[in-house]
Amino acid sequence: MTYYRVDFKELKEFCELSFIKRGFSEHDSRIISDVILLSDLYGIESHGLQRLKMYHSDIKSGMVNRGSESEIIFETPVSGVIDAHFCSGHLAAHRGMSLAIEKAKKTGIGIITVKNSNHFGIAGYYSKMACDRGLLGISFTNSGGLMVPTNGIIPMIGSNPIACAMPAEPYDFLFDASTTVVTLGKLEIYKKLDKPLPNGWAIDPRGNASSDATAIIENINSENGGGILPLGGDTENLGGHKGYGFGMITEIFTSIISLGMTSNYCLKDNIDGCCHGFIAIDPNIFGGAKEIKDHLSKFLQELRESPKAQNQGRIYTHGEKEIEAMEDRLANGIMINENTMSELYELCTELNIDFKVYFGNNVNPKENLLK
Amino acid sequence: MTYYRVDFKELKEFCELSFIKRGFSEHDSRIISDVILLSDLYGIESHGLQRLKMYHSDIKSGMVNRGSESEIIFETPVSGVIDAHFCSGHLAAHRGMSLAIEKAKKTGIGIITVKNSNHFGIAGYYSKMACDRGLLGISFTNSGGLMVPTNGIIPMIGSNPIACAMPAEPYDFLFDASTTVVTLGKLEIYKKLDKPLPNGWAIDPRGNASSDATAIIENINSENGGGILPLGGDTENLGGHKGYGFGMITEIFTSIISLGMTSNYCLKDNIDGCCHGFIAIDPNIFGGAKEIKDHLSKFLQELRESPKAQNQGRIYTHGEKEIEAMEDRLANGIMINENTMSELYELCTELNIDFKVYFGNNVNPKENLLK
Repeated sequence: MTYYRVDFKELKEFCELSFIKRGFSEHDSRIISDVILLSDLYGIESHGLQRLKMYHSDIKSGMVNRGSESEIIFETPVSGVIDAHFCSGHLAAHRGMSLAIEKAKKTGIGIITVKNSNHFGIAGYYSKMACDRGLLGISFTNSGGLMVPTNGIIPMIGSNPIACAMPAEPYDFLFDASTTVVTLGKLEIYKKLDKPLPNGWAIDPRGNASSDATAIIENINSENGGGILPLGGDTENLGGHKGYGFGMITEIFTSIISLGMTSNYCLKDNIDGCCHGFIAIDPNIFGGAKEIKDHLSKFLQELRESPKAQNQGRIYTHGEKEIEAMEDRLANGIMINENTMSELYELCTELNIDFKVYFGNNVNPKENLLK
Repeated sequence: MTYYRVDFKELKEFCELSFIKRGFSEHDSRIISDVILLSDLYGIESHGLQRLKMYHSDIKSGMVNRGSESEIIFETPVSGVIDAHFCSGHLAAHRGMSLAIEKAKKTGIGIITVKNSNHFGIAGYYSKMACDRGLLGISFTNSGGLMVPTNGIIPMIGSNPIACAMPAEPYDFLFDASTTVVTLGKLEIYKKLDKPLPNGWAIDPRGNASSDATAIIENINSENGGGILPLGGDTENLGGHKGYGFGMITEIFTSIISLGMTSNYCLKDNIDGCCHGFIAIDPNIFGGAKEIKDHLSKFLQELRESPKAQNQGRIYTHGEKEIEAMEDRLANGIMINENTMSELYELCTELNIDFKVYFGNNVNPKENLLK
């Protein structure tokens, strides 16, 4: 796979313009683009510009309703419920975490839940919003069914990530992980590369181990049975029931308390309807934010410095890899693979954006790319 | 291994008496015994009366300071920090969750963190306290180091369980899981049975897979290196970095925000110092508790009824097995294995309790047990 490096600022301008062309305001286009591009900056290719085509086709199909706005339908000083009315998931989620932060700044804690939403990008963007303001941030989302419960074959639960962020030096703690062994994005990459899946990732419609990415993705989409395993695998031996349980915690903070769609109802008949959850906590409600930050920083440093396993050079703390990737991408450009580049070219044509203005000077796309 | 069935009420009386004999009040003895026996009722033998000997020796050694009382050292309407002053972990934790519940009943949310504590039993007891009062409850604890971080060999993080409980019909959702693949208790059982550990549970001091339970436990105790793997295993392939991250979330809600001892400092030189975290949330701050309970109950039912993998009879929701075990234990008695029975006999002798009063009529211990 050929990769191109493209300057971050130009990509940001391009990405914003693509949403402005769809009728989003400059302000909203900036938020959506910020979320998408943070993923690319972090080196999480699967959730970045690689998904731009999907987001645009969701707008075209009406799954994402550009004309609707999210609405706060219930509120207390420490909590709130937002009905996204099927607007952009990024915008609904941004509003959700903004409201959680606002409440945390006043009362110490804010918990917001969002229903009837759409795909919101990486969960870690929203927990980082709180972290950037000195708070402990947690974000959750459910999704269309991907995870089979232990002993089951139907993907009843989504990838259901939990992201947690907390200020620390020299690196913030930035954790963001699906509660499945792997995300659907990973399977898509194996499918593209035509590689067999490692053992322990997925099962077929009868519940047997499967290494066939194409078949598993088809079975998930056509609801034939089979899906991705919870973190911990297919049995209780390695803790599959634990990954299933962590997925349920996400379900509770998203679809359950919002009275929204549980994962097994999401993403059917051109309606997504997924639900998100956001928690912001001011460390000052436990004494001093400064002392707490120092205490976490010390522990993270001790983890990084602790002895390594044979042949392992480093112990990472969560967020470290992402921050290093970001430094690289800001200095050397964001990495875009040739398939994504083709999709961006098509999108430019469709939206009447001059591809060369944003990509022409930075990359040397193959002839057929610009045909 | 021979098991005896002993009547729950008699065991409860016996257990309470054992702590009264150590100088605890009737009230406090009842709380400690409640926590210990809920574990046995749930069929979680590792954390029940099997640990009574350990709790008593921790009191004798002064690790658990019977004379000290926990103290609220910082408080807001939604939060609090408790210094346990090395009192009984069960009592400090019970006070912690009681305070979280009290705050949740007033403001909607209570988050309490406890430091300088001792082993508190099963995390699930405390989340259930909130659930029994109609709330969403979450509890955490760190512990002496057991989990090696991804790429590391030193157990820097504890078993660090996360328990979450929420009211539902006909079964509450009761999830309680360590963020390691398995707990130390599981390793102890394999050691007793002299069985090799399954692959993927633990590593030796060089970071290689190990199936030797005895060696691993010794290495953990003597800090030689090696330990239990995070949920997801030894590499990122099956998500070991995720289990490590969930363990870190527990660390944040326990030792970090309380400014207490992180796991790598706990349980050294006859000082435990572990830290706990408790969250109680009133579902009414998201609208109606009744509707939310019904919504969760419906989803749990759908999970249980969804199609099963080949050769699998049931899909369990979390808490279901425990509730079924409790029905059995209340009707037929709690199961105590012969080793534990011997320990209880010795404890009776030491505390001048008549063993036969509590165990004589229900079991037929071997001759050597009563010698």
